[in-house]
Amino acid sequence: MRSSPDQLDATFSALADPTRRAILGRLASGEASVLELARPFDMSLPAISKHLKVLERAGLITRGREAQWRPCRLRAQPLKGASEWLEQYRRLWEERFDRLGDYLDQLQGKQTVDRGKDKEKERSRHDRDRKD
Amino acid sequence: MRSSPDQLDATFSALADPTRRAILGRLASGEASVLELARPFDMSLPAISKHLKVLERAGLITRGREAQWRPCRLRAQPLKGASEWLEQYRRLWEERFDRLGDYLDQLQGKQTVDRGKDKEKERSRHDRDRKD
Repeated sequence: MRSSPDQLDATFSALADPTRRAILGRLASGEASVLELARPFDMSLPAISKHLKVLERAGLITRGREAQWRPCRLRAQPLKGASEWLEQYRRLWEERFDRLGDYLDQLQGKQTVDRGKDKEKERSRHDRDRKD
Repeated sequence: MRSSPDQLDATFSALADPTRRAILGRLASGEASVLELARPFDMSLPAISKHLKVLERAGLITRGREAQWRPCRLRAQPLKGASEWLEQYRRLWEERFDRLGDYLDQLQGKQTVDRGKDKEKERSRHDRDRKD
């Protein structure tokens, strides 16, 4: 199931913060209370609560209904949706590295052909171009 | 190479907008000018330029130096970084679906063991618990 554009907006927006990503990192190993989540950060409880609200609105966490201890739990589905969206571009980052060098050389007008005869032919053309 | 926290902030923030995601989708099939990018959107050129600036700052596109026609090109590396960050959570979204049903049943106090003898044993314990 593809994520809706609104869900992707909310997911990517929630992930655009190092504290929120660290909170998800902590929740990946199991549920935790706000106090437990706040401990590793030099941050006030209201500040942490604000981050939790963003994560909750984005559907990246759920919170228990227990009045005193409302444990936070990670919901991985929106992360899956974001990952699937990015996956469309995989061929680009895998191809690009191979072609990037060639492309940059072309832009700079260098010759990148490295096969026997072609190499020789290209070199003389290159020298001619430089004389112009 | 892992993306830095700042790079991840910039990438996720840039991706949190449907127009910017659509622009990247268009550029995945090749470079394009601002005019070409603006065409499918009901949006002013300055509005599109603003989105392009966000994408450029995040390193998701580069722009040619040609004065008149400054073609935009996709840079896939930050997308790779974001994808790798999400990849850490894959086991969660793959495991969760299997365990979610069991977990919900446990929360509701139901027995979910469905193996021969265990099933029988569990049932009698369940009955005993109910009498308490």
